[in-house]
Amino acid sequence: MLYAQSGGVTSVINASAAGIIETAHEWPDHFGKVFAAHNGIIGALTEQLFDLSVESKQAIADLRHQPGGVFGSCRYDLEDIKTHRPYYERLIQVFAAHDIGYFFYNGGGGSMLTAERLLQVGARLGYPLKVIGIPKTIDNDLPETDTSPGFGSAAKYVAVSTREAAFDVASMAGTSTKVFILEVMGRSAGWLAAAGGLAESSPGELPLLLLFAERAFHEVSFIKAVQARIKTHGYCVVVASEGLRDDKGFYPRADKDEGVAVSLASLVRNRLGYRAHWSVADYLQRSARHIASSTDLDQAYACGAAGVRLAAEGADGLMVTLKRITELPYRWETASTSLSSVADQECSVPDEYISADGFGITELARRYLRPLIQGEAFPPFRGGIPYYERLQLKRVARQLPAFRVE
Amino acid sequence: MLYAQSGGVTSVINASAAGIIETAHEWPDHFGKVFAAHNGIIGALTEQLFDLSVESKQAIADLRHQPGGVFGSCRYDLEDIKTHRPYYERLIQVFAAHDIGYFFYNGGGGSMLTAERLLQVGARLGYPLKVIGIPKTIDNDLPETDTSPGFGSAAKYVAVSTREAAFDVASMAGTSTKVFILEVMGRSAGWLAAAGGLAESSPGELPLLLLFAERAFHEVSFIKAVQARIKTHGYCVVVASEGLRDDKGFYPRADKDEGVAVSLASLVRNRLGYRAHWSVADYLQRSARHIASSTDLDQAYACGAAGVRLAAEGADGLMVTLKRITELPYRWETASTSLSSVADQECSVPDEYISADGFGITELARRYLRPLIQGEAFPPFRGGIPYYERLQLKRVARQLPAFRVE
Repeated sequence: MLYAQSGGVTSVINASAAGIIETAHEWPDHFGKVFAAHNGIIGALTEQLFDLSVESKQAIADLRHQPGGVFGSCRYDLEDIKTHRPYYERLIQVFAAHDIGYFFYNGGGGSMLTAERLLQVGARLGYPLKVIGIPKTIDNDLPETDTSPGFGSAAKYVAVSTREAAFDVASMAGTSTKVFILEVMGRSAGWLAAAGGLAESSPGELPLLLLFAERAFHEVSFIKAVQARIKTHGYCVVVASEGLRDDKGFYPRADKDEGVAVSLASLVRNRLGYRAHWSVADYLQRSARHIASSTDLDQAYACGAAGVRLAAEGADGLMVTLKRITELPYRWETASTSLSSVADQECSVPDEYISADGFGITELARRYLRPLIQGEAFPPFRGGIPYYERLQLKRVARQLPAFRVE
Repeated sequence: MLYAQSGGVTSVINASAAGIIETAHEWPDHFGKVFAAHNGIIGALTEQLFDLSVESKQAIADLRHQPGGVFGSCRYDLEDIKTHRPYYERLIQVFAAHDIGYFFYNGGGGSMLTAERLLQVGARLGYPLKVIGIPKTIDNDLPETDTSPGFGSAAKYVAVSTREAAFDVASMAGTSTKVFILEVMGRSAGWLAAAGGLAESSPGELPLLLLFAERAFHEVSFIKAVQARIKTHGYCVVVASEGLRDDKGFYPRADKDEGVAVSLASLVRNRLGYRAHWSVADYLQRSARHIASSTDLDQAYACGAAGVRLAAEGADGLMVTLKRITELPYRWETASTSLSSVADQECSVPDEYISADGFGITELARRYLRPLIQGEAFPPFRGGIPYYERLQLKRVARQLPAFRVE
């Protein structure tokens, strides 16, 4: 069997890898050796595979602690079969050369499309390949699942960071900074901006102002909303989706092209005369394994493990999903859906999760989001920094001629 | 006695407050009631004081967990006595009205200057006031002390975040981002950029490139250094002081005015054609109590406690300092120095801590820095976010007419 990581990585994608590898080892006769592709589908195309049978049990277990994608990931999706036929044929050749009967693809909506296409090609070329998708995205935009592994931890990072920064700004607002802006990921979906709303221990505790990718930015109403919060609390903390645009598709200020936080801070300074500070979390939010949600970590592992169990039972063409059984307390289980139902889909924050003024989350959103950031899962530390066990990453000997990926 | 917080806050300044308050309570006959000023020296001028005798022991103990300045801080330094004489006289009136004989000022170099001037005015006006400084700054630029409370935790945040982001970038570099830039605080001192060098578990593990406020930025050598790291590791992680300027005092790119990270990323894209991501940590680095160094936290508490013990023994006009006894293992104790020796001083990263090429730290720097980020001191969590006990913050009744601070 072959495992590959795809798309932007998360702080818990390696936990899914651990779930897959450890569970596959429970069925040695069924799955045989477990391989991982270097840099996602590109490693499968170029026959750059790692043999995981040489790794120690401890090293595999420790994948739970390590952010990033330990086998390398890629931003590379295969086109449709007509356009990319030689690539699909090459993949089947590589699978045949190494006796690979199972392919586990760990990614988001785009990766599930590639997985689904690969499934079809296998069938068409008569190669017996079973394909299972394992969900992953900090954007939380995969349909058919309660959430996607990676999101809960990024959401926890955003909630905790926003909370801490709010206490900082509160103490300085009398004579210094009155507005703090945190830019979070999400080009078309505002799920991580919504997570900013979890910074409060109760609604109204903090003067939060959330800006969703789902809502067109209007300068006047934004400025009014900032003013209102400064009036009640003396300061304001903004959490903004990187995808924030006005109704013409421009950044909050058309003369700025360096991101949303910079633009908003300059707007606050120019229009209100307040001192504003800003932060761009960027990769920190998706790699912050040190503040991962233990719920998210458990779900990441469970999705990997469930994928292998599904495959052992003969399933094919499915993506593992998470199903919410109860909300309070949060109970969940893994389930599955067809790859075709999630391939290349994106789901954004629904209207009923965004407050009427467009600048906050509703109680319904809180009930949905809060369970996802529950629990801490601090990694081991050595010398003051997280300690990661290193894998050997032993290459599998190549059987085929080189192949060039353009 | 009166306690006040000054300047930019840190994730552990409230631990110093706890050290002061708890230790003062051991000498009730000596110190009487403990007051705190609202928003630093401004609260002392405007007679906005909190009576801490009503706070529960638990709430005071829990100050160890809470970032920001719980009593409010300020960016406001008193000018010299000639210019600001009415302010100093007002302070003495407020102290007299509330029978305040001890003033504990928790801040950096600028605040120590104010503290020293206040000491002189008290003597000149014949008011028996004892003044003790408690060090605090994430910039680590106070002289006469091994380090300043707040720095170790910010340094740990920078080291951990840089490490996590490096593992993220490493896994994507094959097809996506090759360069990641983290902008950290430090206008004139590069101590936090130096802390980026602690992201490695051993020298050379990661392709780090540090840019110090102490070194003039040269485009050509920077671009060469980025290239060299991409050649060896496939990617590069830059940690840059916000104060980075070229030899003419400009940002890395003169046509950009939105900060160092933005400028560097655009430079990498334009000159090398690589995809670059960037993050600005801003307030997150100084409020990240969740990843505080337990060494720093202990030192913050100890500095507060030592200040009170010094005062109980009759000391006056001193700032508490930290003294390194041994390096391996790190053993330290509190000591003290005169306020005049630290007032308005700034110490930057010494030449022997910066590697010959100007882009890294030396073994000497590692030996100095590494102990400061040792140990984790996670705060309590409730519902997925840090829990902070709230103080009552009961106002002391005013005795004097209002006073306007301009």
